[in-house]
Amino acid sequence: MEPLVSEIKQKFQPRLKPIEWRGDRLVLLDQRILPFETRYIEAKTVEDVAHAIRDMAVRGAPAIGITAAFGMVLALVEKTPSNTQEALKTLARAREILSKTRPTAVNLFWALDRMYNKAVELTSSASSVRELRDGLEKEALKIFEEELDAEIKMGLYGAELLEDGDTVLTICNAGGLATGTGLGTATAPIYIASMLGKRVSVIAPETRPWQQGARLTVYELMQNGIRTTLIADTAVGLVMYRRLVDIVMVGADRILLDGHVFNKIGTLNEAVLAHEFGIPFYVLAPTSTIDTRSRVEDVKIEERSPDEVRTVRTAQGSVYVTLKEVAVYNPVFDVTPPKYVTGIITERGVATHPLSINLRKLLNKT
Amino acid sequence: MEPLVSEIKQKFQPRLKPIEWRGDRLVLLDQRILPFETRYIEAKTVEDVAHAIRDMAVRGAPAIGITAAFGMVLALVEKTPSNTQEALKTLARAREILSKTRPTAVNLFWALDRMYNKAVELTSSASSVRELRDGLEKEALKIFEEELDAEIKMGLYGAELLEDGDTVLTICNAGGLATGTGLGTATAPIYIASMLGKRVSVIAPETRPWQQGARLTVYELMQNGIRTTLIADTAVGLVMYRRLVDIVMVGADRILLDGHVFNKIGTLNEAVLAHEFGIPFYVLAPTSTIDTRSRVEDVKIEERSPDEVRTVRTAQGSVYVTLKEVAVYNPVFDVTPPKYVTGIITERGVATHPLSINLRKLLNKT
Repeated sequence: MEPLVSEIKQKFQPRLKPIEWRGDRLVLLDQRILPFETRYIEAKTVEDVAHAIRDMAVRGAPAIGITAAFGMVLALVEKTPSNTQEALKTLARAREILSKTRPTAVNLFWALDRMYNKAVELTSSASSVRELRDGLEKEALKIFEEELDAEIKMGLYGAELLEDGDTVLTICNAGGLATGTGLGTATAPIYIASMLGKRVSVIAPETRPWQQGARLTVYELMQNGIRTTLIADTAVGLVMYRRLVDIVMVGADRILLDGHVFNKIGTLNEAVLAHEFGIPFYVLAPTSTIDTRSRVEDVKIEERSPDEVRTVRTAQGSVYVTLKEVAVYNPVFDVTPPKYVTGIITERGVATHPLSINLRKLLNKT
Repeated sequence: MEPLVSEIKQKFQPRLKPIEWRGDRLVLLDQRILPFETRYIEAKTVEDVAHAIRDMAVRGAPAIGITAAFGMVLALVEKTPSNTQEALKTLARAREILSKTRPTAVNLFWALDRMYNKAVELTSSASSVRELRDGLEKEALKIFEEELDAEIKMGLYGAELLEDGDTVLTICNAGGLATGTGLGTATAPIYIASMLGKRVSVIAPETRPWQQGARLTVYELMQNGIRTTLIADTAVGLVMYRRLVDIVMVGADRILLDGHVFNKIGTLNEAVLAHEFGIPFYVLAPTSTIDTRSRVEDVKIEERSPDEVRTVRTAQGSVYVTLKEVAVYNPVFDVTPPKYVTGIITERGVATHPLSINLRKLLNKT
């Protein structure tokens, strides 16, 4: 598969670069004002990066991890420490600042720890701060590269399931904006199939309450030349009943070893409807998403502010669409039992039923 | 059942009166600006009524029919014709004007025809325009009364299915606002069960693209003291999976004799999910909704403007939530196959499976 991955990497020129490293600064696509404005933010300091993550100019777990990794490099760019021991102190402070931006983002801590541990390792061999900085830059680029490689592999496995003329139903934004690479997880097969000459269309549901479908997925797919149709979340049943959809492809926030999938609220609706109407339902996520320890009853589904449902995001900001005093239940994720999942596509291959056995096999693969 | 209907009619004091006849004018609740403002419109002329229907201050098929019927009475109020023959001409003109307001509203034509035919019948016996006017006023009140009676009966049948403490999931607004009586179809069992001392709560999904759930159902239920929780349309699966719902009750725009139900987009999602999770799914509609002639393949599902999905209604008017150039598929209704329908509740009783046989039995009942 590796030669094919390299080939795709050469060819893949995303129209959107959510994260771009320019040697001395990070250029970030401001996702808060999409799709109304395409504006980039230049981050030159740790504080700039922390600000971008905290205020959600960057969003999506992999994108946050990558951004934070480059934030660690910027710590040594914005003011060069006098020696490597000083540099380590500076990096510890940077890690501290960046780790406080989004307290529940697992990828964030993972990336910061990896960068800091690399710095500790490098200080024993690097004689200058310059060498340390270069080593860290390489590590951040490697994190980015690994993410992209994993997405290309998922994309290649997923693209095999797509035929010329197929229409994919997705949900939320499991796209290149969320991962920072421009390729994405659920969108990777679409972009890659399209590069390989298959005509693939997408139906994107709005995805209330945050409208990631309407604001981000539609924008990203259109920028990359993919034929895209927006629907209301209420229309997912009819598009499947009417066979306007050939396959469903969604991302995942967490996958349990028994095959339960936690993902954006609304995923369960699509999974059950797809199952009922005989449409394949695939989940795309790297093996790092697989939680080998939790049972389904252990996972708490995050509930967010009622105002997210009472309001809607527009070009003019958030506006109320109902009474301020109405009670709201606003779970952000839902859980899809394995019964409704046709397969789980990872960078190591596709797990089909029995999911509990085949997910374990993928994890044991090296 | 009749004594019980009278008793309920005595007791039922809706907090909202969407349509109120005051002898010489019609007072209409302006549904365009709900829930942000509760404002009433006074209609004194045929033109006033036509305006209210055309501009959707009044919405919902039964409400439009009732409003139009009173519009015919107003034709003889605004300017008294010199004799009954003149009056008939005035009424023909009024029917003409009113029939052009919403060209696809079946209830509108039905009510206008019934009023005009009554006028023709009355002119043979009524010696004065005054008598004709009074006869027509009686007929319009009768249309209103018949609607209310039918809803009370549906409500009584439906209330039997509700237990103390139950939570009902609905969709859109099949409430007293849509029918004009304040009682509604899918909401009638909720209001009546509540009057009979059962504590019943409701979960109302927003119902994009028009947000009737967020704008109308939530408002109406709260006004009537029913515990109501608003959810995003994406959350219907999770609330059923988590057993936060005991029963689903929805309205219908058209029911085929084989049991296929056409209703607001999103109904199919709820029906399939309810079926999968073992939650009863009931449709509430008068027998007049049953279409004895069409087959499912004959019914065209109305598609409306893409801008309904691209925008959202707020207190400040409609605002864009996505790109203006994005392609949209905006079907307004969907179709639920009989397999997913537990029963159909009409004013003549409840049809359960086999629906095709039992719906026919209800129609043959006198």
